[in-house]
Amino acid sequence: MIYITRRERFNAAHRLFRADFTDEKNMEVFGKCSNPNWHGHNYELFVTVKGEVNPETGFLINLKLLSKIIREKITDKLDHKNINLEVPFMQGKFASTEVLAIAIWEQIESDIQALGASLHCVRLHESENNFVEYFGS
Amino acid sequence: MIYITRRERFNAAHRLFRADFTDEKNMEVFGKCSNPNWHGHNYELFVTVKGEVNPETGFLINLKLLSKIIREKITDKLDHKNINLEVPFMQGKFASTEVLAIAIWEQIESDIQALGASLHCVRLHESENNFVEYFGS
Amino acid sequence: MIYITRRERFNAAHRLFRADFTDEKNMEVFGKCSNPNWHGHNYELFVTVKGEVNPETGFLINLKLLSKIIREKITDKLDHKNINLEVPFMQGKFASTEVLAIAIWEQIESDIQALGASLHCVRLHESENNFVEYFGS
Amino acid sequence: MIYITRRERFNAAHRLFRADFTDEKNMEVFGKCSNPNWHGHNYELFVTVKGEVNPETGFLINLKLLSKIIREKITDKLDHKNINLEVPFMQGKFASTEVLAIAIWEQIESDIQALGASLHCVRLHESENNFVEYFGS
Amino acid sequence: MIYITRRERFNAAHRLFRADFTDEKNMEVFGKCSNPNWHGHNYELFVTVKGEVNPETGFLINLKLLSKIIREKITDKLDHKNINLEVPFMQGKFASTEVLAIAIWEQIESDIQALGASLHCVRLHESENNFVEYFGS
Amino acid sequence: MIYITRRERFNAAHRLFRADFTDEKNMEVFGKCSNPNWHGHNYELFVTVKGEVNPETGFLINLKLLSKIIREKITDKLDHKNINLEVPFMQGKFASTEVLAIAIWEQIESDIQALGASLHCVRLHESENNFVEYFGS
Repeated sequence: MIYITRRERFNAAHRLFRADFTDEKNMEVFGKCSNPNWHGHNYELFVTVKGEVNPETGFLINLKLLSKIIREKITDKLDHKNINLEVPFMQGKFASTEVLAIAIWEQIESDIQALGASLHCVRLHESENNFVEYFGS
Repeated sequence: MIYITRRERFNAAHRLFRADFTDEKNMEVFGKCSNPNWHGHNYELFVTVKGEVNPETGFLINLKLLSKIIREKITDKLDHKNINLEVPFMQGKFASTEVLAIAIWEQIESDIQALGASLHCVRLHESENNFVEYFGS
Repeated sequence: MIYITRRERFNAAHRLFRADFTDEKNMEVFGKCSNPNWHGHNYELFVTVKGEVNPETGFLINLKLLSKIIREKITDKLDHKNINLEVPFMQGKFASTEVLAIAIWEQIESDIQALGASLHCVRLHESENNFVEYFGS
Repeated sequence: MIYITRRERFNAAHRLFRADFTDEKNMEVFGKCSNPNWHGHNYELFVTVKGEVNPETGFLINLKLLSKIIREKITDKLDHKNINLEVPFMQGKFASTEVLAIAIWEQIESDIQALGASLHCVRLHESENNFVEYFGS
Repeated sequence: MIYITRRERFNAAHRLFRADFTDEKNMEVFGKCSNPNWHGHNYELFVTVKGEVNPETGFLINLKLLSKIIREKITDKLDHKNINLEVPFMQGKFASTEVLAIAIWEQIESDIQALGASLHCVRLHESENNFVEYFGS
Repeated sequence: MIYITRRERFNAAHRLFRADFTDEKNMEVFGKCSNPNWHGHNYELFVTVKGEVNPETGFLINLKLLSKIIREKITDKLDHKNINLEVPFMQGKFASTEVLAIAIWEQIESDIQALGASLHCVRLHESENNFVEYFGS
């Protein structure tokens, strides 16, 4: 069993809030991350897949195909976007790093299986000081 | 003459656009950076000051004071904000990295002189691939 | 289950040695790390906690509270200190990265449980080339 | 149980290909990585070992000895070399990052056991965007 | 006057040597960098251009156009290539970082002027420990 | 004219203080950096030299020789040392980053001229947030 990880990046705006809270209540619970005028990040996404090395090629999967899946399913939909307003797979969800990491897993899991590998981990960095990891449910 | 540099960081949303352009025209000139729903970045700011080493203390200036100026004048006003809508010193200006670097220079130049040093460079990173430097006019 | 990691930093002096060894014997076992006049590092600390995403907020725990625990219990006591001489929770212990990582775990484990999460990993970097991970006993 | 990781680096040339394929077929399967004139990388290698902290010394193993093993068995044989042509332990194998990581594990596993620790993970970075991890069979 | 820098990357093989030297003489002068079987690097290229901020757009130049020039003229010709054998603008030249940085300057200087800016610096990193800067003749 | 930079690293302990001040006065002027029990850093040193490319070799100077000068004159004397107590060329000086950068310049300037190049800049990083540059007097 070998694990291979691909990094991709996207820049996006977001806001942490509940629509059923006032701005004051949102500020109390979510702090400055609840700013109604939005803020944003350079997100770094690390997708780790696992499986056996293919004896015909010496690699687990073609990394170009993995990169293509991540771009088409994830970063093309998030890059230079507003996560709360514009990302189909985040509609009706909190725009937190935790929820986003889980949503990314759900978007790519089956495509990675179709490549002949298993999705192992989605790691999402919001800043140099914070990151989230999800290994599936 | 010695040069000393302090790094500070802020996360913000912005949009590149002209109000007198349509969204289509803005997209043509500014690309996806003109998204009306905003996007954002983890900005890294490097402020370089220069001067003589103080023979009484062995340093150019007290870095805590430099950090305090940058925080009070710059990062407290930019962090978790919308650069186009909420930053007093960016009102009526393009929210580009170039214009923001020049505006940062103007906000801190005199405070740094009051510390007994000269502002040498404002370097502003928008991503790991792009940064701007301004050395004054 | 989701995992979230917070990075904090501290600068400290230390020395690897045994009081019951001569300086020569310490040099033989611990090398230049045993210098009786001390040396130091910029330590990077990554604390990973795990748990369920709170459906009320979309996050696992409030990262501000996690950061506050790490600062009050760990970095305030280590930053700009001598690990061998001045850090209460390191008294009578080796000032190695391994022992320090375990001691950090013990200092914060219960506070993190009080936040409603579990401590998963303490990762401590002594330099760009060396780091230690502890996952509990 | 504690885990300690040592980073070492090497620069090498390689090529992904099968001798029983034409250059065209290699290009189709392996893309530009199959260039018959070679290309190369700055590889970063992270070796993680695990075990108990030695109560006599406060550390798991002497990192100088771990570094020496990695240099003698791995980086001295790979640095500034052609992985396909010149590395004894890669003869007859694909020069992929996956296969190289497994081969590195096999070269150092017993030496690390002789130090009184267990090899836990070989992580090999080919670029800032791709890395492989191997935890043994 | 404002300065803006764009980073691009490429992976390539090379060798430092003189054809009129024996392999032994090349080893004596160039060390392991003269390996006849090649070695390689992940190169990082930083191109800095300077000029006035355009009052119509708020930026110096369109970074997409700068990136396009660097890719078409430089990285498409170097990435996954052998610098000594396959790069047209390096024919008959030493494949050193110094000579490569100067050659890169010559390839892009006029295109950058056509964008309305001036080329200020080509910075080329061969590893995390070595880089070269060229500011023109 | 070409510029080439070499990075070297060292870990050291230091203290900012004046012997003619009380500990209280030192704390007032130098803050926690004046801790009488020392603290320390992982310093990163970047030495930039400039000159003409040698037409016989394609490089400015042999980087191995530059690295050897920096190690023999600087890092061997600073690594795992106490800057205030043990470094000959820092005796009687403040152990600030500014003063250390200037002292490093003085230690290596003539050796670099003997290599046929000129010392251009000594850049010294004390942490990821602070660095000093010295270009000579």
